[in-house]
Parts: sequence; C-alpha cells; structure tokens
Amino acid sequence: MTSKIVNEVMDANAKYVAGFGGKSGLAMPPARRFAILTCMDARLDPAKYAGLAEGDAHVVRNAGGRASDDAIRSLVISHKLLGTNEWFVIHHTDCGMELFCDEVMAELLDDNLNTAAFDGKNWSNPQHGGGCAAGHFIKWHTIKSQEESVLQDVLRIRQHPLVPRDIPIYGYVYDVKSGRLNEVAKATQAGRAA
Amino acid sequence: MTSKIVNEVMDANAKYVAGFGGKSGLAMPPARRFAILTCMDARLDPAKYAGLAEGDAHVVRNAGGRASDDAIRSLVISHKLLGTNEWFVIHHTDCGMELFCDEVMAELLDDNLNTAAFDGKNWSNPQHGGGCAAGHFIKWHTIKSQEESVLQDVLRIRQHPLVPRDIPIYGYVYDVKSGRLNEVAKATQAGRAA
Repeated sequence: MTSKIVNEVMDANAKYVAGFGGKSGLAMPPARRFAILTCMDARLDPAKYAGLAEGDAHVVRNAGGRASDDAIRSLVISHKLLGTNEWFVIHHTDCGMELFCDEVMAELLDDNLNTAAFDGKNWSNPQHGGGCAAGHFIKWHTIKSQEESVLQDVLRIRQHPLVPRDIPIYGYVYDVKSGRLNEVAKATQAGRAA
Repeated sequence: MTSKIVNEVMDANAKYVAGFGGKSGLAMPPARRFAILTCMDARLDPAKYAGLAEGDAHVVRNAGGRASDDAIRSLVISHKLLGTNEWFVIHHTDCGMELFCDEVMAELLDDNLNTAAFDGKNWSNPQHGGGCAAGHFIKWHTIKSQEESVLQDVLRIRQHPLVPRDIPIYGYVYDVKSGRLNEVAKATQAGRAA
C-alpha cells in the first residue's frame, strides 16, 4: 500500500517540476555566499523567514539548530569548498529541546521506542517494552535558554580550529508567534570577525 | 559596519512578519507527522520541492543529507518526542560531496582554511599558510554515487537500535536540473516497515 504522505509529496513535487523553469541553470556554490544553521522544527521555513530563493544560501538543520560536530562539518565544507563567508545561528522560541534533558530521553528510550506523551510538564511512555539502552550513550544537545544556547553555539563555531577568524557569525532567536528574527546581541558580538 | 546580507535578511524577515497571520497558532509537533533528511545545498528548497507549509514536517539538513550520528539524534527526537512516523532520505544530483574525498579535504585544510578553487577536476588552495591539522580527524561523509549513498543512509537508519521497525524510510534523489524527486527503489525497499 502506498503511503498517503508519499502520494501527497509526489503530487506537490510534480507541481514544482512543472514550474521549475530557469532554476535548472543554478550553480552549486551559494550565490549570496552565506549559510544558516537552524532547528528542524516544522514551524520554521528558513527560505521564507530569511528571504531565500533557490541557489542563494546553505541551510543546515538539526534538532535545536545546535553547533554539533556534524553542523560544523557542514559549515566547514560550506566555506572551504563552496565559498560562504557569513553564517547565522538561529534557534527559536517554544523549542522542543527545552522540554527534556539527557536523562529523561535516555530513560524514555530505555523503556520503549514509540512516541512518548507530554502533559505540559512531564514525559511518559504510553507503551512499555522493546526499549534500548543506546540512548544513554547519546548527547541530545538539549536547551535551557535560547539566548544561552545561541551564544554557546556561536562561541563553539567561533572557537573551532577549522573556522577562519574572518567569517562573522550572527546569533538570532526566531519567534514562532510572530515569525520575527530577534538578534542575540551578545552572540553576534562573540561571533564577530577578527 | 552592518553586513549587506544581514540587512537583506532583516528586510525579508520584516515582510514575512507582516504577513505571518494565522501561523502564530501552529503546534510544535509536525501536523503531517513526517520528517525529511536532505542536503544543505542552496539549490534545494524542501518546503517547495515536497510541498510543505509551516507546521507540516521536520526538516533535517547537513552536507550531503547524510545519516550522520547527529541526523539520527534529530530523527529519534522527531519520532520519540514529536510523533513523526515516516521519514524521507533525499540526496541530489550534482552534489558537492561527490567532488572530494576525506584525504583531499584534510590536505586542503592542513595548508589553509580559506575557500579553495576547483578547476572541474581538482581542488587547490589559492592561498597558503594558517592551516590546521584537525581536518584529518573528521569523517567528511563524501559521496561516490547518489543511489548508493541513499541506500547506505536508509540502511543505517533502518538498522539503528533506537529506530522503531514500524517507521518506513523512503529513499529519493532530487534532480537539480528538473526539481524532480526520483525514487531509489532499492533504498525504499530496504527502508520498508516491518
């Protein structure tokens, strides 16, 4: 049986292909020479909130928009091979990463792998059994405060030995209630080019 | 001095905020309960190529759209805490990850951190000095063939002990010349739910 979601995605893709036009000639290096690191959250559309057309900028996304080793791998490739020279770190209000800590996640997974329930304060597993201990060995990169996490992440990138000092790194928090990007001045200051 | 790019992003964001309207009420869990793992490439706009509105689906992006540890961290959070239960792995034609290997990247960085030049076959550094050996200690997750990399990544996710067997994982290659998503049947088959 074909998935309803697959059918919907294929239908949407067919419409996109029909109007693709001149985009077939876009070059690989980002035309506007910048990159955004942001969260995977479904409410965020970086192309819309930052005004990106296809071909403009690299977009790196993970849970939280964190400066993980893998995000840094991507940013170093973005600059070293494809020429971006300004980077944004953009976390957001009401992020799921604020609702748990490493211990909670590891214990939930230890018990059961299916989706947990959240009552506004605590997580619980509706089902039990079939869990896995591997969650205890993963750093989940949770967040206590968005302003702090943006600052931490800008600092981690700024201080990474493979990141040139002349790339400015800007820190922002996206407000999911308004769509607005609010600068974290302390982070942008910490990420300034030398 | 304020960056031209920052000004442009802020101007685009102000327009987005002005038309934000009803999107302020979107819930945190993805409404359509699926996630896409894809490449950071500037030419790819997953919301457009797959028909996503804000609030619909998680989007995880890195260099290559690879099933790195960090991508798996994000997908496990996506399912366990936020309820997605179908996942797409989408690589693309003409990917920068096909143009180098770990040794080339490490040697380029060892010499110099600034953007390298590509002559269609080989990379070289226009400048020398100020490099860093850390690149030798990073796995860059390069790609030899898109169909193979999609299959590898679907398999890696399918076989991960924290991923429930009942989540189907679909494999696709996005064609940057047409905008079309082409299924990698072998990968989707490998990623079928049990």
